[in-house]
Amino acid sequence: TAASSALQKFTTLGTKIVAVGRNYGAHAIELGNTIPKEPIIFLKPTSSYLPNGGTIEIPYPYESLHHEVELAVVIAHKARDVSESKAMDFVGGYAVALDMTAREIQSSAKEEGLPWTVAKGQDTFTPISSFIPKSMVQDPHNLKLWLKVNGEYRQKGSTKDMIFKIPYLISHISSIMTLFEGDVILTGTPPGVGPVNLYQNITAGIEGLIDVNFDVKRRLRPLKQ
Amino acid sequence: TAASSALQKFTTLGTKIVAVGRNYGAHAIELGNTIPKEPIIFLKPTSSYLPNGGTIEIPYPYESLHHEVELAVVIAHKARDVSESKAMDFVGGYAVALDMTAREIQSSAKEEGLPWTVAKGQDTFTPISSFIPKSMVQDPHNLKLWLKVNGEYRQKGSTKDMIFKIPYLISHISSIMTLFEGDVILTGTPPGVGPVNLYQNITAGIEGLIDVNFDVKRRLRPLKQ
Ligand SMILES: [Mg+2]
Ligand SMILES: [Mg+2]
Ligand SMILES: [Mg+2]
Repeated sequence: TAASSALQKFTTLGTKIVAVGRNYGAHAIELGNTIPKEPIIFLKPTSSYLPNGGTIEIPYPYESLHHEVELAVVIAHKARDVSESKAMDFVGGYAVALDMTAREIQSSAKEEGLPWTVAKGQDTFTPISSFIPKSMVQDPHNLKLWLKVNGEYRQKGSTKDMIFKIPYLISHISSIMTLFEGDVILTGTPPGVGPVNLYQNITAGIEGLIDVNFDVKRRLRPLKQ
Repeated sequence: TAASSALQKFTTLGTKIVAVGRNYGAHAIELGNTIPKEPIIFLKPTSSYLPNGGTIEIPYPYESLHHEVELAVVIAHKARDVSESKAMDFVGGYAVALDMTAREIQSSAKEEGLPWTVAKGQDTFTPISSFIPKSMVQDPHNLKLWLKVNGEYRQKGSTKDMIFKIPYLISHISSIMTLFEGDVILTGTPPGVGPVNLYQNITAGIEGLIDVNFDVKRRLRPLKQ
């Protein structure tokens, strides 16, 4: 359809990425957090997208980033104060994404009560697959997510273990801020997060649907102009 | 010029608002904070823009929001790893904006080490003026910002008191994330922040350049669908 062909370019069409933290109980616990009573949400800029095949860049002086494989939900059209019962009408499709995180920066931000923007929002910190039309996904709450570093499994999980399901997330987020066509919700990561180091390789995917591949290198900055 | 006419619509052209916290020493101190060594940055979604004349909406159960009047810098074209000496070439113009803040939500987020997104990112939380072309502003570091609630002065300050000046902010932020045409940097607020209550009125401006006017009401949500 016309709508889903516009959504193929969701990374340039959309204006925001709304990410959900601690949406899998086992991941919340592995980071020493409690299970939240309502979704923890934060923003990533669309400038952080990295298409499949690209290179994740680690900024100096860090030697690693944490990988978080997540189901991305692509919004089909403007959504504000949407009820849970109608929420799935606002889904255009899906993607698999990595919510790359400079954990050292995030940890000190948390301690100081500061925003997570620098820890989560840098260029290349949201590697993402191409668009998967909604029609290709029978049940978004029964997808197997996986991630490997250098060919070795690090994360395996099922979207059935999300604490807050997609309709709840869309209803909740759209009660806080209007979602637009092409906007993305990152629905949280299953357990197994951990560091990926310089010069390693990440593969990830949704079983039977799609996979992605990214190298990890040092971010190079231009010499002083 | 063609470029500056496209920027008239920066609120729909841009994809992000990068806001700077505690960029005036006297404001950092009034909130009991220390003066930061580098800029504190956070994101607001473009869905939070409210054009001049609109109504700021306070979500239930809050009775007030804090007002923060700020100079907004509108980016003219893609900026990545920009040096301070070239930074002003990437400025297309300015606006006066309010960084509306649900302080109770922000305070508990800070205590829990959580993002500021819900405190800062709701619809109508970024009231903003029309675009002021760069050519109309002789010195962006010598502008008088003011804000009144119900006609009474609450904030008066000069952009000369910014801790981190505009070239530094553009250089710093563009080293973290690529800025695009129409993106906005909110440069922080001078002292005098405080609550604006339901049914009050806010006026604000940049002396000799522009002013804006907003009513404040209760946010109404639709009945359960
Ligand atoms: Mg995540
Ligand atoms: Mg756009
Ligand atoms: Mg502010």
